[in-house]
Amino acid sequence: MKTIGIVGLGLIGGSFARAYKAADETFVVYAAEQDQSTLQFARLLGAIDGELNRETLGKCDGVLVCLHTELSCQWLEANAPFIPASALAMDCCGTKRRICELGFRLARQYGFEYAGGHPMAGTHRWGFKNSRADMFRGASFVVVPRVYDDVTLLERVRSFVMPAGFQRLAVTTAENHDRLIAFTSQLAHVVSNAYVKSPTAREHHGFSAGSYRDLTRVAWLNPTMWTDLFLENRDHLLFEIDQILGELRQYRDAIAAGDEKRLWRLLEEGRRRKEEVDG
Amino acid sequence: MKTIGIVGLGLIGGSFARAYKAADETFVVYAAEQDQSTLQFARLLGAIDGELNRETLGKCDGVLVCLHTELSCQWLEANAPFIPASALAMDCCGTKRRICELGFRLARQYGFEYAGGHPMAGTHRWGFKNSRADMFRGASFVVVPRVYDDVTLLERVRSFVMPAGFQRLAVTTAENHDRLIAFTSQLAHVVSNAYVKSPTAREHHGFSAGSYRDLTRVAWLNPTMWTDLFLENRDHLLFEIDQILGELRQYRDAIAAGDEKRLWRLLEEGRRRKEEVDG
Repeated sequence: MKTIGIVGLGLIGGSFARAYKAADETFVVYAAEQDQSTLQFARLLGAIDGELNRETLGKCDGVLVCLHTELSCQWLEANAPFIPASALAMDCCGTKRRICELGFRLARQYGFEYAGGHPMAGTHRWGFKNSRADMFRGASFVVVPRVYDDVTLLERVRSFVMPAGFQRLAVTTAENHDRLIAFTSQLAHVVSNAYVKSPTAREHHGFSAGSYRDLTRVAWLNPTMWTDLFLENRDHLLFEIDQILGELRQYRDAIAAGDEKRLWRLLEEGRRRKEEVDG
Repeated sequence: MKTIGIVGLGLIGGSFARAYKAADETFVVYAAEQDQSTLQFARLLGAIDGELNRETLGKCDGVLVCLHTELSCQWLEANAPFIPASALAMDCCGTKRRICELGFRLARQYGFEYAGGHPMAGTHRWGFKNSRADMFRGASFVVVPRVYDDVTLLERVRSFVMPAGFQRLAVTTAENHDRLIAFTSQLAHVVSNAYVKSPTAREHHGFSAGSYRDLTRVAWLNPTMWTDLFLENRDHLLFEIDQILGELRQYRDAIAAGDEKRLWRLLEEGRRRKEEVDG
């Protein structure tokens, strides 16, 4: 797969473009981007070869839609008829149920192949200016295929995305993806954003180290993008927020009661869980 | 200050010993450590010059007590009569009200100088085996002096601890230290430990990136040490836990209600706070 169309030159789309061109000069990358100066800049940098339009879209082996869910859906609706039947189209949306349902339906209708995707990488910053050729180095790429055990498709996905630097693929369903991402990513953003709201935050300089820095890093988020992602994944995210609220209340009660044994047990359970899961 | 006594060769005491010897071979470091093999090992490594006992304690210009609060109190009670009047003694406990009250009283009684200390550095690992000469590089060292604006004392503290690699001193009261640390460090450990308890944690591999890793890093804590620190700082920590519980409930309610505007506003407020505080 050597001719790639990228829709949206933000943090993710921009990083894909840079990564392909850095990996192998023979990749041809076309990009669609509303902001004309970003498009020009990316072309001057050599991150893309030209604009993605109906004509160049027709030459693509692979198409990566790297917009927020709403805009990704709109782009697919409008452009599905022009995606070649020989191409594999994928999105990079942070939640997968809505976009995959649409992508699978349009793929059946117009004859191209479709799979949902989600690179497990990023930063709390956004936009092309923060994109990097090595953004995906060592990360995993989550794939949501139409048919779970379609080996041929998986090989196509592999040859499509691995040159961008990923270390491995993880295959799952849209439902399972959204359930897991509510915990690994969405809850982290909610907690981090809530953490920094303590009035004490304003006085932390000189009194903080790695734990404060780590807990609040992703507080600095894009509110519009995350509002959409959270509301789209409301069921799973509410489960996780309720979960941590319940857990936090247990520590709170043990501390309020001065119950040393109970507090120790709560902390030891958390330590043990962390060790089991990541040790 | 060239002859230093270190009480306890754990993560912090061990790092101080290594840091002094790495900074300047003319430092003479004596250490008290219950675990004889750690003591031997530290001597073989050249991290210490010998054992801290009543005789060598009498030669020290500076004494650093690097044990948990309870043991630090016990050590000070037992050894205060043998600390030379010319010496500056400090502790490195994670909470400061109890230890400073004792240290200040003993210092008045026996004639030596005392200040509370707290290096703003560490890792979630513990013990001498995880100590490092560069642990404090670039970190701040919090000082709790007996008299807040005692310039002479501050100069002594500076010449005592800065060779270990700190970038700056922060001066405060024990009360204010404990209030701030409840937010910057203790709450982070509670939240992280609670976070990893979601049943979803067991399935995160391949579906997580930096935000999960950062949020759960300090879940892997020493339950005994943190139980003591949390209970000693109960008032301030409860304030912070209640604070984040209240904030989290707001996101929860906005998400449950599908209230896009309210959710956006909550996220934007958090983003703005993070920017104000750390931008």
